[in-house]
Amino acid sequence: MDLSPLCAPTPPGWVAEAVRRWPELLADHANCEKKAASTALALMFAYPEDRDLAARLSRLAREELRHFEQVDKLMQQQGVPYLRRKPGRYASRLRTAVSNHEPKRKLDLLLSFALIEARSCERFRLLASLPAGQGLPPQVASLYSALEVSEARHHQLYLRLAEKHAQAAGLVIAPRLAELARVEAEAATSPDAEFRFHSGEPVAGAPALGESDLAPREP
Amino acid sequence: MDLSPLCAPTPPGWVAEAVRRWPELLADHANCEKKAASTALALMFAYPEDRDLAARLSRLAREELRHFEQVDKLMQQQGVPYLRRKPGRYASRLRTAVSNHEPKRKLDLLLSFALIEARSCERFRLLASLPAGQGLPPQVASLYSALEVSEARHHQLYLRLAEKHAQAAGLVIAPRLAELARVEAEAATSPDAEFRFHSGEPVAGAPALGESDLAPREP
Repeated sequence: MDLSPLCAPTPPGWVAEAVRRWPELLADHANCEKKAASTALALMFAYPEDRDLAARLSRLAREELRHFEQVDKLMQQQGVPYLRRKPGRYASRLRTAVSNHEPKRKLDLLLSFALIEARSCERFRLLASLPAGQGLPPQVASLYSALEVSEARHHQLYLRLAEKHAQAAGLVIAPRLAELARVEAEAATSPDAEFRFHSGEPVAGAPALGESDLAPREP
Repeated sequence: MDLSPLCAPTPPGWVAEAVRRWPELLADHANCEKKAASTALALMFAYPEDRDLAARLSRLAREELRHFEQVDKLMQQQGVPYLRRKPGRYASRLRTAVSNHEPKRKLDLLLSFALIEARSCERFRLLASLPAGQGLPPQVASLYSALEVSEARHHQLYLRLAEKHAQAAGLVIAPRLAELARVEAEAATSPDAEFRFHSGEPVAGAPALGESDLAPREP
């Protein structure tokens, strides 16, 4: 994680909550993979003349969809139901920090997605590295260990695309990345009443999904 | 094509125009592949509780993105530039025929996408089967021949998902498919001032993309 653009680590409380509430974590994670694919496609539609971006993000979107299928399969194996939940605060806070004016907007979007992928990567690593028996079910830990590698590639790709755009548009990348990283870190670490894959420090009192909420494995 | 839900064939005039304007055909086709992926994702977001649909459409979206990458690569090999064009009338005409009320809306969406994929399949077949020397450049014909097979699978998948939904919701599929197929056939065969992958009978007078519009192959 030497090259991580994150400016604050995930609070230990989030990791403990994720272990306790792993079925909800999986369900929200499946949704994140779908959103990651849809975000990449949205960039392809927003900047169709950037053919290098299109070709690279098309491959990234395919990989995110493959992850969605893996998480969904694991959910079915573990008897975890689909959960309809309102989105957490994380992505919307980052979105409000994104400029509405080009060429800054494209830079902000690419940097935001780099930060989201870097946070995902950090959390996969934290969850996959817990001692056996004190963490997630082994199949879940094993999947997260594999996904950490992909997400690291994804955040590096978004950073490279951001650098390329910044050079072409005469923008300076470092101060803007630092600003967005502060917004990201605040959303990912400050007290948060909701538990999500990208939520902040858990606030006591939120109930975990009960065993009775878990549907039997589909036939 | 025994199982095709289409109710009218593509006019021969469209095929001749597509051969004459193949660089524009390729550019519009690349856009269609992106849209097909984005459409599948939109259905996954609209009906997240339908996990069978999500898993199948995720794989379909990955395949469409792979096709986008193949078409984009071929465009670069053939020196075909990206073209910013307003969308044709085809998809919007189908969209206006889609019900706004569930459970009919889901049936209409699935049947519309089945028809779009079936039309793509029919046109790939027509273009790939032209005699050598009288049709498309060999590399383009060869790609279309390969894509015909995928699109046939895709229209069958959308029809199967439609049948499953119709059964679960107590809807009758055949009359609705016939109605939507009439809308589709009208859009794909009646006189059309614009040339697109899914446009209708060409109206004389539209200029083909000139040789001077073709960018050199990217380094």
